[in-house]
Formats: sequence, structure tokens, C-alpha cells
Amino acid sequence: MMEDLKPLWDAFDRFTLESRELFLSSEVPRIKEAPSPLSFSRDYVASNSPVLIENALDHWPAMRSWSSSYLLKKIGNKEITVAVTPNGYADSVVGDRFVMPEERVMKFAEFLDILEGKSSTENGVFYIQKQNSNFTGEFSELLCEAEADISWATEAFGKAPDAVNFWMGDERAVTSLHKDHYENLFCVISGSKTFTLIPPTDLPNIPYGVYKPAKYKSNSSGKFEILDIADNETGKELIPWACIDPLTPDLEKYPRFGKAQVITCKVHAGEMLYLPSLWFHHVQQSHGCIAVNFWYDMEYDIKYSYFKFLENVSKLLHKSVK
Amino acid sequence: MMEDLKPLWDAFDRFTLESRELFLSSEVPRIKEAPSPLSFSRDYVASNSPVLIENALDHWPAMRSWSSSYLLKKIGNKEITVAVTPNGYADSVVGDRFVMPEERVMKFAEFLDILEGKSSTENGVFYIQKQNSNFTGEFSELLCEAEADISWATEAFGKAPDAVNFWMGDERAVTSLHKDHYENLFCVISGSKTFTLIPPTDLPNIPYGVYKPAKYKSNSSGKFEILDIADNETGKELIPWACIDPLTPDLEKYPRFGKAQVITCKVHAGEMLYLPSLWFHHVQQSHGCIAVNFWYDMEYDIKYSYFKFLENVSKLLHKSVK
Repeated sequence: MMEDLKPLWDAFDRFTLESRELFLSSEVPRIKEAPSPLSFSRDYVASNSPVLIENALDHWPAMRSWSSSYLLKKIGNKEITVAVTPNGYADSVVGDRFVMPEERVMKFAEFLDILEGKSSTENGVFYIQKQNSNFTGEFSELLCEAEADISWATEAFGKAPDAVNFWMGDERAVTSLHKDHYENLFCVISGSKTFTLIPPTDLPNIPYGVYKPAKYKSNSSGKFEILDIADNETGKELIPWACIDPLTPDLEKYPRFGKAQVITCKVHAGEMLYLPSLWFHHVQQSHGCIAVNFWYDMEYDIKYSYFKFLENVSKLLHKSVK
Repeated sequence: MMEDLKPLWDAFDRFTLESRELFLSSEVPRIKEAPSPLSFSRDYVASNSPVLIENALDHWPAMRSWSSSYLLKKIGNKEITVAVTPNGYADSVVGDRFVMPEERVMKFAEFLDILEGKSSTENGVFYIQKQNSNFTGEFSELLCEAEADISWATEAFGKAPDAVNFWMGDERAVTSLHKDHYENLFCVISGSKTFTLIPPTDLPNIPYGVYKPAKYKSNSSGKFEILDIADNETGKELIPWACIDPLTPDLEKYPRFGKAQVITCKVHAGEMLYLPSLWFHHVQQSHGCIAVNFWYDMEYDIKYSYFKFLENVSKLLHKSVK
């Protein structure tokens, strides 16, 4: 094992410094209209740079029609899948566990009652966040009021999205810091989402742990228990996950996180965020916020390969190589 | 200094292996016609992947008109700049020196006589290779028979080329292994060029040295001497350069070079090679080969930043950090 890692940390620090000077900015740039496929591909996707796009959803009837009363009338009787947690944290670290939400199937009308505080019997935080293309599945009745893809993005990527997801929920629902192997276009229909972003180039500055997979399960008295998931259910033993809250980071324990480039971006109704593949993100929302996101499969090209190299260097730096 | 570099070499070896599995191929792919700006940007530039493009120069009158006799008539009396070396190696390593060619200004007709063996008085290898946009400068009379830019590439890059260069010379003229900070479109008008390519991800496998800058100068008896260039003339002390010939590599001295992905690509008349920024290349040519290349400034984006990180890691691996 390498005895003195300082030269490698120095090389990494030069890299993040240079990345900031060359192509990162302290806030997400805005553009006033949907880009052309070429501009989107060249100016944002190729360089893995986020951008906030205004006025790209104006033609969606959803922008005007999706009120609570309209949705109740349209899909109130539909059965939908809702993630339920005691505190709003789905897919997050609790002690030595990585805890996934309880999934409940209920009528959309019941979910709306809970969200609007009209149901006093339910404990917990409810969030529609099932990322299995639920918009084209469970919510397909609403599809004609939005779109199944973003045409200029589909042309730019040269392929249709792998998944289109519908999101709606409690302001207490928080998505913990993580990254996805997808190019992500996140469209806010009503309310707002606040993204806390960190570029992939900061990977070694982000503390990671490994956790036993578990899930919430409410018992007969309505209290939440944490149940371990058997190995044969997930197919893997331990889950690596970022063990830091970027809003209240413990810099005494993780001083390196203080060097990460943390960018906050609030996305309002009618706006779309291009969140590039492998960017870390933590997400909050206003109460009842409705959003639709499009996941396009990323290219496993030179950028991905470099990121994997950085990941392996990071393991060396943190001396966690097996 | 890190005592045991094996874990870092292992991380690098995994990186090159994964790069080969994911996006590198053992030969340069061919396409049958000029790509659209979007396809060029998305499928090749964004992923830093070379491609050989057929039938993209068919509309250039140069493809039919540029014979020796035609060029002699058109620009025979023009003064042009020619690189002269004793052996065909301009910008190459000789002992502890990095030796640049002698530059001579002569009439194009004189150059043609030498190239065609009609002049018995001249020693050395003559090569028109001045990379200061000589095609739009010294050879501007020929511009109307080709083009000052490649329209679909200019649209894809979102900018005009920084330089357009005209190349013509002896089959003994060789360009030694190096990389450029440019996106390069290399168009062969007559004859052929053979490129030996190595991807930027192989950087630590390529041996480097540092050399004192020098240049060839023929003396009054026609013999070439190597003259040192004073510090104040180049503005820098030592020049780093790859110290290996990829055609006859000394694998006993540099065993790591045996792991590099070496790709050979012969570009024939009428074909265009997209040579992405930071790819290492070594170039040979057929006798009298005529070519024009377009240099578009590269983007200093996340790919460049990752490459600089790899460069700094490579310095650690070779223990050459100052």
C-alpha cells in the first residue's frame, strides 16, 4: 500500500482547482428557451454541464390543468404506488443501514387526502417517487397532457428516454445525496424543487460508507420498524452510499467535504433542469410539488471511463481498497 | 513520496482495460459520407473518437486539378516556406536534444524540382509542413479549389478553424509521435498518409523525456549541424517529448509501451480523418502526398481536465514530479 498519499491528494486538488477554473461555475446557467439538438449536445451534454431551461414546457397542457381537483377527477380512483417513510428520507443512511421506503399501493384520492392533511389516521411522509417509468405506467392517463419524451433531447441523444417518472409529495420528503447513470431532464409542473449539486470531479471529497440494505415497514400500531433485507432479495451484500448531508455537513468529521464545489439550483414551475450523468444531487421540494423527469441512458464513453478511474484513485486515497 | 506505486499502476491498468472494453476499437471506423453536424458532435467529438470519412471532398476541384504540372503553372513562382532536415525527422529527439527543422524560403517550382529528383545539388529531406495556416497564407491562390473550412464541422464546433495547413513532401518525411490541443480534420488530396494513433487514456504507457531545444542548420558545404536554441528565443528551458518510435518501439527499455493501444489508419486520396484532440499520432506519407488539414480549437472542458489529472498521476507513476 502506498505509504504517503500526499502527492496523490495534491494531484487531485490540482484537478478540482483546474476544473473550477476551466468549466465549472458557482451557479447553474440559465437559457431562455429550449436549445437546438446540436447546441444541447455540444454545449451541455458533451461537456457534462448542467443548465436551467426556461419556457420549454409552455406547450404542455399540464402546466395549466394539473390542479388537485383536476387530478382527483381524472385519476382519483387509480391505484398508484407511494413511498412511505417516518421522516421523509427514502433511500438514506440510518446508523449502519441503507434504508429504503415502504411501498404502499393506494388510490390517488387517498394519497391526495393524506398530502392535504385531510386524513388524520396516517403516520409518516408520503411521496410518489417510483422510478420505474411510472408516468408512462401508473399515470399514463396524464401522458397526453405532457409528453413521453423531450423531442430536442431525444434528437440530441439519438435515442428515446429509458424512463419517464412522475413525482408528487410532501415538503418533508428529501432525496439524499447520490448520483445516477442517466442523463436527467427534470421538469417542474407546479411548486418548486431545490437541487444541491456537486460535480463528479469532486468524488474523492465526498465521504462514502457501506451499509446493510434495509427497508421501512409500519407495524399494526402505525409505528415504523427497520427490517433487514435478506441477501437473496437484493442480490448484493453491502450498499455504498454518500454518508453526508450537504445542507448540514459535519466538516469536523469530513473536512475534505469543505473543498467540494456545492451548487444550489432552485427549479420553479415551468422550468427544466438538465442534470448531467454522474453529478451528485440532493433534492428538496415545496409541498405538493409536481414534477416529471426524463432519464436518457448515458454514454459509456471516455468521460465515464475517466470517472471510473477517479473512483479507483479515490478508493486508494481513502485506503478502502479491498 | 509514495513508496509502493503498484496500487496506482493497478488502478491505471484497470482504466485502460475498461476504456478498451467500453469505447476504443482496434481500428478507426469508416463512414461513407460527411456526417450531420449533430451526428459529428454527438458520436465523435463528444466521445473523443476518431472516424474516417469517405466522399466528403468530392466537391473540391482540387481533387481533380492538383497535378504537379497544374500547381507549377499556378504557383510555381510563389515563395513558400519549406522544412528541411537531413533525414525526414522534423521536431524529433536526437540524443538529448529536441531538434526542429531548418526553414528555407524558396520558389514552389524549386521545391517541386527537389521533390521530383530533378535537382542534384540539394541534400536533405524537404517537406512543406508549416503549421501557421499556410494554406490561407502562402498558398491562398489554391484556396478557391478547396475550402477555408469544413461547413458541417464549423457548425458542429460552433466556430471557424484556427488554422488551415497545406502539406506536401518527401516519403522520407515523418512526423514523430505527439499530441495537439486541437480537433483535427486531415484531408488527403493525393497519395496517402498513414497515421499511427494512440488514445490519450494511454498517456502513462508512453515514455517521455525532456530535451534541450535545437534546430538543424546546413553549413556552407551542405552538411547539417544541430544548433542549440538560446533560452530567450523559445522562452522555455526544456521541452517534454515522447521518446519512442511506435513503429520500432524498444520494449525492453520501455515495456509499458507494449500495453498501449496502437491503432494504424491509412488515409487515401479523397478521405478525411477526424483526429480528436489529445490523441497521440505519428504520421508517414507516400511520396508527393498532398494534404490539407483543419485545426479547430478544442474545448477545455471536463475531458481536458480529466486528461490533465491523468498527466499528473502519470508524473507520480514515473516518479518525475519536481
